[in-house]
Amino acid sequence: MEAIQIYLKQRAQVVEKALERDLTEMTGVPDTLREAMRYSLLAGGKRLRPILVLSAAEAVGGKEEEALPFACAVEMIHTYSLIHDDLPSMDDDDVRRGRPTNHKVFGEAMAILAGDALLTRAFGLMAQGARYSNLEPARVLALIAEGSARSGAEGMVGGQVKDIQAENRSISLEELQDVHRSKTGDLITYSIRLGAGVGGASDSQLEALTGFAERLGLAFQIQDDVLDVIGDQEAIGKPVGSDESKNKSTYPALLGLEESRNWVRRLVAEAKDLLASAGGMDDRRLTEIADYLTVRDR
Amino acid sequence: MEAIQIYLKQRAQVVEKALERDLTEMTGVPDTLREAMRYSLLAGGKRLRPILVLSAAEAVGGKEEEALPFACAVEMIHTYSLIHDDLPSMDDDDVRRGRPTNHKVFGEAMAILAGDALLTRAFGLMAQGARYSNLEPARVLALIAEGSARSGAEGMVGGQVKDIQAENRSISLEELQDVHRSKTGDLITYSIRLGAGVGGASDSQLEALTGFAERLGLAFQIQDDVLDVIGDQEAIGKPVGSDESKNKSTYPALLGLEESRNWVRRLVAEAKDLLASAGGMDDRRLTEIADYLTVRDR
Repeated sequence: MEAIQIYLKQRAQVVEKALERDLTEMTGVPDTLREAMRYSLLAGGKRLRPILVLSAAEAVGGKEEEALPFACAVEMIHTYSLIHDDLPSMDDDDVRRGRPTNHKVFGEAMAILAGDALLTRAFGLMAQGARYSNLEPARVLALIAEGSARSGAEGMVGGQVKDIQAENRSISLEELQDVHRSKTGDLITYSIRLGAGVGGASDSQLEALTGFAERLGLAFQIQDDVLDVIGDQEAIGKPVGSDESKNKSTYPALLGLEESRNWVRRLVAEAKDLLASAGGMDDRRLTEIADYLTVRDR
Repeated sequence: MEAIQIYLKQRAQVVEKALERDLTEMTGVPDTLREAMRYSLLAGGKRLRPILVLSAAEAVGGKEEEALPFACAVEMIHTYSLIHDDLPSMDDDDVRRGRPTNHKVFGEAMAILAGDALLTRAFGLMAQGARYSNLEPARVLALIAEGSARSGAEGMVGGQVKDIQAENRSISLEELQDVHRSKTGDLITYSIRLGAGVGGASDSQLEALTGFAERLGLAFQIQDDVLDVIGDQEAIGKPVGSDESKNKSTYPALLGLEESRNWVRRLVAEAKDLLASAGGMDDRRLTEIADYLTVRDR
């Protein structure tokens, strides 16, 4: 196993332990609800977003333990969005990460409520996060406000709406990029900006990291579309070709497969250049993560 | 019209104007999503919770304009919970406040996302709320953390789960109180504690206001059940007898109608005594609101 894979695995374990602890420590939660939250929150997955929070904090000299509650919060937001996206009235998916989706196991009502509860908890975790650290409360408030914008109507939720509205019709490349910028890009950008903010990034560091994040987010989405065409079902946890079968516009459909892969490579190169040119950062992990993504063909 | 009715109407208008402004100022929101959010957020209603935020702030000498973003946030949380509760997989209600429910107008997917967006925005609004005021950021963080707990798995969302699990079986009075303490009580208690916190309440004032809020929340719920039996459909905005038809346990069913009304009176008297005994507060509005609730037979 490569060093980066070991790093990713270890960070994922740190995040999972913290998520597990947080779920366990909540009081007065009905058993079924806690189970439904746990089912999706601890269902494995790459933990890319929380790891980006930790890596960005580390890059600017922050402490992992200070960034950890914020990393967990981002993963809760991501998980709630998956639970709701999978619902019958949305994407109607039965399988996620190789297991039945939340509503298939717990029913629709419980799945909606487990999602609501995870989203709600995410903000509580961030608000509490400052307690255990030397973070300035005003900085935490600004980060919470940004998290709300990037994950709400102005960001991720708005992106999901755009995605639904783009189904069953052909859309332009610009429109597709707009959908993904909000649906998946905003939360990835936020993850890195959040880690940077918690870690005490300077303005110029934050700017470089934001540019890095935006390119990484787009590369990640294109790569996801590529995998949907060429990947194997077991590795990606959902049926291969499921985008096409739903008449979803994808990068391979609009750009072709080879050009899509070229885009990924180009975006990752740009992202890495941005980081390197900023200077004064320990950008090794973020660079490795970006590289790792481009070879992630399964 | 009584003075308290004029007061409630004026405060409701202040809140509605602020909600309208906030929705309008959000950028990059898809039109349909903004419409779906607006449809339920500006659907009228008593605005009890945000008014409690304002009145509690006022009672301890706080400024209305500082409390207003927090009042709006609570109303957004309340509204999202109504949208999700009305969904076919939950209470399956077609009518709310005399109008078709959100999913009847915009479809299930959009209703779920509008709820998600309102919940997400609520926390952003609170995090931004400190910007426009002299509130200590650390205090705001503590209030956000409490809001998350009282509206999430440990509070309101957990209460909704308990409520679903209590359907179609007979439950004890203790169990019914437990359901309502989290499902509706926690957000009402939070509204008052939030206003008090924003307004700069002392510890003893906060304690008295919390006791007041807990009794008021319970009284309000019992009164709601009573209205479901005796009210007229137009006034309560949903079909009379809808609880019974869904086999929901209610206070009138467990205590009888007359005893339920006695409970309301007793709880309100206790609540007012608590306020009066605390001293040093301008408790006139809160007292009037509590009184107004007990005569609210339509």
